[in-house]
Amino acid sequence: MRFVIIGGDAAGMSAASRAGRLRRDMEIIVFEQTHDVSYSACGMPYNIGDPEASMESLVVRRAEDFREKQGIDLRTGHRVDMIDRGKHIISGEKENGEPFECGYDKLLIATGASSIVPEVPGITNDGVYFLKDLRDGRMIRNYLETGSVKKAVILGMGYIALEMADALRKRGVHVTMVKPRKRLLPWLNEELSHVIVDELEKNGVELYPGHSVDTIEKTGSGLTVVCDDRSFECQLVIPAVGVKPNSGIAAAAGLDLDDFGAISVDRRGRTNDPDIYAAGDCADAFSVVTGKKVWVPLALHANRSGRVAAENICGMDTTLKGIACSAVFKVFELEVARAGINPAEARAAGFDPLEVVIASRSRAHGHPGNKTIHVAMTGDKKTGRLLGVQMAGAEGVAHRIHSFAVALHNSMSAEDFWQADLAYAPPFGPVWDPLLTAAGQLLRKSE
Amino acid sequence: MRFVIIGGDAAGMSAASRAGRLRRDMEIIVFEQTHDVSYSACGMPYNIGDPEASMESLVVRRAEDFREKQGIDLRTGHRVDMIDRGKHIISGEKENGEPFECGYDKLLIATGASSIVPEVPGITNDGVYFLKDLRDGRMIRNYLETGSVKKAVILGMGYIALEMADALRKRGVHVTMVKPRKRLLPWLNEELSHVIVDELEKNGVELYPGHSVDTIEKTGSGLTVVCDDRSFECQLVIPAVGVKPNSGIAAAAGLDLDDFGAISVDRRGRTNDPDIYAAGDCADAFSVVTGKKVWVPLALHANRSGRVAAENICGMDTTLKGIACSAVFKVFELEVARAGINPAEARAAGFDPLEVVIASRSRAHGHPGNKTIHVAMTGDKKTGRLLGVQMAGAEGVAHRIHSFAVALHNSMSAEDFWQADLAYAPPFGPVWDPLLTAAGQLLRKSE
Repeated sequence: MRFVIIGGDAAGMSAASRAGRLRRDMEIIVFEQTHDVSYSACGMPYNIGDPEASMESLVVRRAEDFREKQGIDLRTGHRVDMIDRGKHIISGEKENGEPFECGYDKLLIATGASSIVPEVPGITNDGVYFLKDLRDGRMIRNYLETGSVKKAVILGMGYIALEMADALRKRGVHVTMVKPRKRLLPWLNEELSHVIVDELEKNGVELYPGHSVDTIEKTGSGLTVVCDDRSFECQLVIPAVGVKPNSGIAAAAGLDLDDFGAISVDRRGRTNDPDIYAAGDCADAFSVVTGKKVWVPLALHANRSGRVAAENICGMDTTLKGIACSAVFKVFELEVARAGINPAEARAAGFDPLEVVIASRSRAHGHPGNKTIHVAMTGDKKTGRLLGVQMAGAEGVAHRIHSFAVALHNSMSAEDFWQADLAYAPPFGPVWDPLLTAAGQLLRKSE
Repeated sequence: MRFVIIGGDAAGMSAASRAGRLRRDMEIIVFEQTHDVSYSACGMPYNIGDPEASMESLVVRRAEDFREKQGIDLRTGHRVDMIDRGKHIISGEKENGEPFECGYDKLLIATGASSIVPEVPGITNDGVYFLKDLRDGRMIRNYLETGSVKKAVILGMGYIALEMADALRKRGVHVTMVKPRKRLLPWLNEELSHVIVDELEKNGVELYPGHSVDTIEKTGSGLTVVCDDRSFECQLVIPAVGVKPNSGIAAAAGLDLDDFGAISVDRRGRTNDPDIYAAGDCADAFSVVTGKKVWVPLALHANRSGRVAAENICGMDTTLKGIACSAVFKVFELEVARAGINPAEARAAGFDPLEVVIASRSRAHGHPGNKTIHVAMTGDKKTGRLLGVQMAGAEGVAHRIHSFAVALHNSMSAEDFWQADLAYAPPFGPVWDPLLTAAGQLLRKSE
């Protein structure tokens, strides 16, 4: 049996590795358009911020390792353009322009996501860099190392935009962030978003929300980002306004997409074609909170869904339980994390949300180095069930979110979660963990 | 109605506060033999290790605050010696030697635990200090501040012994740890216990396990701890060989104790007398893993069980779901945590345990500052259910244990836990969290 995989990043290579171990008799061919497979894409902003780092340190496994050690037929520099479902053939073009085609018995689409390109004149100018794959990362690093970048403008204020603001400040670059909407991270509770704004301003980031970019002009000394009522001179522009699923070839082949434009898959990772699976950032997932489809392109689910698709292709029967939409990022000295849904999302999903916002501490009473942890927790008034949480603080946020994610996987109520026996020691938290305190307040508010 | 509480620490004051809020008409009287109520006992070793700290910074709320702000009749310096269940009266002695008695409608015993005193000649010598309450903490601090302590011997190698070793090293004191059994932390996986031994030795702690102390002799310049084949001169001895429940007055009143000598309570915190409850370190609890009684005297359960007892006394119907036996401590640069049971405990409880031990990382591939995280995870072969985990590492251990504790509360299988959507970002962990990797290996090992 021949198992063909389109895309050699997190989902694709997880699938290839898993299938290779499960079925030594299976022919596994991976087509990847770049020459980078298996690298830490999420590590790029942090790497860029560190003058001592090398971009190549993000490579987890090289293409040769997959070929030689795991016996996977990994064809880099191959761009797949079309799936012929009737003939069970994919076809595309090599980087030298030569066409190629390849038959399959089972196919996995793992084409990932790509940066949304804002429709702004000048967006293709030199000095405008998107950050999506390792090639982008190398280009930005090299550009910074010329020493000519004094000022940068970041378009957008999402995770990657914030991480890049941090990275560029670490390089001594002046940073301005511009976005059309007034609210930074609109999914975030307003009190918590103020905490992030304060952290950005404290670190010298200039924020300019509520303004669209009209054009990016090339000037003698660099670029000018022109907004409605102000212009920003700079040498570097990073558009980071979001990503979109690479589902074009799937759609052209008549595979079902969802409302997010991602490839629609069932809990086994299968599309509406029984011989075609999809995994990773190009495909959707089920929310463990709402039971409905969501599209949240993040690394862990990409790896896991690739692996699960491979298991099902190899004859096992593995189902994906769904995602809790957990995420965390670091911006300067602040850890920001979320899991589940916020009150607006809860209302849209038919819940009757109740939210509490508290400020707790990262260490025990009297322990030196204590920091504030902000928590916004949402539950359902009717059932008492926990729906989501958001946290921000200088320490103790990143891993605390895990316990709440596990609670969401188990549809726990605030009452049951309040009883969770979380470990306590003075350097690591108050006796009542911030999440337990928030759950307790949710309980009292609903009494 | 009069609600009387014996003991004004974590459980007792949690109960008093909760009852005061729930029933403003209730007469609440707390008897506490010391003058310290509501302080961070667990913070004492850390406080002692910090020359800049003041022991008083550990006080969360003073007795006057409870009296004035919460209207609780808190009688400090009152030691309760007897419960007359027939007459519904408790009696005891004030610190000035005067006797007192007090009737009750409902009684809560929250007498805590006390240090086990090893039967060693010289254990009452000057320079031998136990660490249990704030008075002990003050005495040790004051003694260290005289500058006369150059060498200390710690008897025992449990949590408090290790935290005190760390504290004394921070004060520049030479530390020797002596205990009769060969294994440090016998409940801990052997590979992980080597990690702790290495950390102790790296920090100049002299370990002398497998030896009993014969006597503690008073010498001209201090003390000599005499073992079978070696003696240690020192100026300070800290016996920290464990604690025992203060259940004497309960036993004398004919209340049921369990096999650990703790007061046996049901899920509402009630003893075998319908008018008497017990909470905190003097009482036992149900394990969420085995469903059986356990006695694990730790701060969070003390607070929670006091609160729940008060709710039931006030007419609510709240049940304690049980404890996961979660614990964490810090020793030098190492975080050590556990939740659930180990293979030996699992076998004793009738499970068929399977254990995996892995070394993972605290940050993503290529992220600077990466540290090793050691994980020993135990599951049940027959059912696939998770039973326990132990972790040690220089970062990222303390809060990670929370997610596993929540998994234990939900009786999750390794298979379901492996699917948990834990948040990922490069500064905080690998894409596959160490706990997910361990769960995945447990799964494969059981296939």
